[in-house]
Amino acid sequence: MNSASRPSEDELIARFFAPLAGEGGLALKDDAALLRPRDGHDLVLTVDGVVAGVHFLPDDPAAAIAHKALAVNISDLAAKGAEPAGFLLTLALPDGWTEPWLEAFRDGLADASRVFGCPLLGGDTVRSAGAFWISITALGHVPSGGMVRRTSALPGHRICVTGTIGDAALGLAVHRGSTDPALSALSPDDKRYLVERYLYPRPRLVVAEALRTYAAAAMDISDGLAGDLAKMMRVSGASAEVDMARIPLSPAASAAIAKNPALVDLVVTGGDDYEILCAVPEDRLAGFLAETSALGAPATVIGTVTAGEGLPLFRSAAGERRYAHGAYQHF
Amino acid sequence: MNSASRPSEDELIARFFAPLAGEGGLALKDDAALLRPRDGHDLVLTVDGVVAGVHFLPDDPAAAIAHKALAVNISDLAAKGAEPAGFLLTLALPDGWTEPWLEAFRDGLADASRVFGCPLLGGDTVRSAGAFWISITALGHVPSGGMVRRTSALPGHRICVTGTIGDAALGLAVHRGSTDPALSALSPDDKRYLVERYLYPRPRLVVAEALRTYAAAAMDISDGLAGDLAKMMRVSGASAEVDMARIPLSPAASAAIAKNPALVDLVVTGGDDYEILCAVPEDRLAGFLAETSALGAPATVIGTVTAGEGLPLFRSAAGERRYAHGAYQHF
Repeated sequence: MNSASRPSEDELIARFFAPLAGEGGLALKDDAALLRPRDGHDLVLTVDGVVAGVHFLPDDPAAAIAHKALAVNISDLAAKGAEPAGFLLTLALPDGWTEPWLEAFRDGLADASRVFGCPLLGGDTVRSAGAFWISITALGHVPSGGMVRRTSALPGHRICVTGTIGDAALGLAVHRGSTDPALSALSPDDKRYLVERYLYPRPRLVVAEALRTYAAAAMDISDGLAGDLAKMMRVSGASAEVDMARIPLSPAASAAIAKNPALVDLVVTGGDDYEILCAVPEDRLAGFLAETSALGAPATVIGTVTAGEGLPLFRSAAGERRYAHGAYQHF
Repeated sequence: MNSASRPSEDELIARFFAPLAGEGGLALKDDAALLRPRDGHDLVLTVDGVVAGVHFLPDDPAAAIAHKALAVNISDLAAKGAEPAGFLLTLALPDGWTEPWLEAFRDGLADASRVFGCPLLGGDTVRSAGAFWISITALGHVPSGGMVRRTSALPGHRICVTGTIGDAALGLAVHRGSTDPALSALSPDDKRYLVERYLYPRPRLVVAEALRTYAAAAMDISDGLAGDLAKMMRVSGASAEVDMARIPLSPAASAAIAKNPALVDLVVTGGDDYEILCAVPEDRLAGFLAETSALGAPATVIGTVTAGEGLPLFRSAAGERRYAHGAYQHF
């Protein structure tokens, strides 16, 4: 314990986190959590660590950090066609942590947990001996055998993405005070929209079932469209062609690119979209597009899976390119 | 990525960790892991974070750090009566990491994974922006409704521990180069034994089924006998009396205490035992003692659960005491 005035780990858990615990969390009074798996279902498991100064800015709002730490895991579950069952949290606090900060973090986590329907099951609180960091393991249910893989895209499948691409990467640039005139010239509303997309990703849980029904392969886009598409094609033993004109953009991103066309590379390679990237067989495409549209998370066809093993080819009016180091590396 | 010569996260996972992946880990090629829960079973979940400089010494052998990071989670599963099903790893590497170090870490993790029968299901690798740290989430199966709680000790239950207490705390003191004459005077074999107990805890998986059959409540001893007993009694709404003469000691610990009786406080409050603490009803005691003895992890009765809510009372020939700050705080 750092100082006599600080709560012990047990007090900290009881005061800050026990109110978030789901039924399986046993009020965080036990040393383990319990999950009763749903009959006829498999469990999908995902884990993501986020570190101050690496995955978020140390001055980002505490509630946004908490939201995002959970959201990135929920996004993985959604992409696999799973419904959230609960999460476990490891929270490492630097020596200088304050109670108001931790309360804001806790409140952000509670909101996210409620919005995503994903209760806290258990956790561990440690001294970080450095930067603040969080590791979250999330669990989700899928009907047995129904997990949507990343490895199963086949040539001929159409490549789709939900929502719009690149907003978070542009939002991070705005948030960091970019002096790019194309970003500075955006309206306050557009800037706010982009920064919100960076700070508060909205995982596409709403399409989980549609992915199970229609998609042959899926993943979430966390490290940039170009890099994540390359990854999906590599593990599927395939390549892809993308029509850059079809990549869906928000009005804010369109306005920025209209002023500075070079920003399209940031849009394609930047991270933190948390949209869904999937491969859909031609005969299921109409159904997928209609259903995602009805669900409020419309998908757009941006290209096609091709035979071969090279990096995906991005075509535009200006020419063709392959993004060799397309993935935004958090490591 | 830190430098062009460093492997990307994907390369690092493929080279170092994919060989450890169990079936549910999907060769770590997907962005999530899959677990098919066993019919008629619940899942027990536990998570522990360990940080260089807080939970282990930065110079500890990499294999020992890996072993311990998994062992402390397996110990939680064992105490809940669960059989390991798999684990997820978050690994945060400081900027100065080296490949030989990571190989030794990976080998230690592979050995521990095999010994504990607990395959790697998935993980995340990040830059730590500071100290090296690891967070492990472990999952285990228990027959439905069979998880052994920490909260269900009742007055009259006998308090038992497996193995011997205090070895790891003494071993850490030796490992840190303690100048206590009672420790310096130990034989090289005794010193080695104690340090091994600190570096390579052996979780008591072998008694998991016996705990389900005989114990009313159980937890593992990670933060010191006095503190963990106080915790179990508090969440059970009870207190306890312990006969200090009955606390089982190894020959090495006995030799040290014979020379310096004050070391008994370190034995009782020091952390890292990873033995089992449990409350057993009187009518099941003989069966529990016989079975744990037959299993090679003999349990010893050290006291009794009592009514009331105070801190446990430790009685010895020298008098009585309550350990107010008995728990070793990792936080």
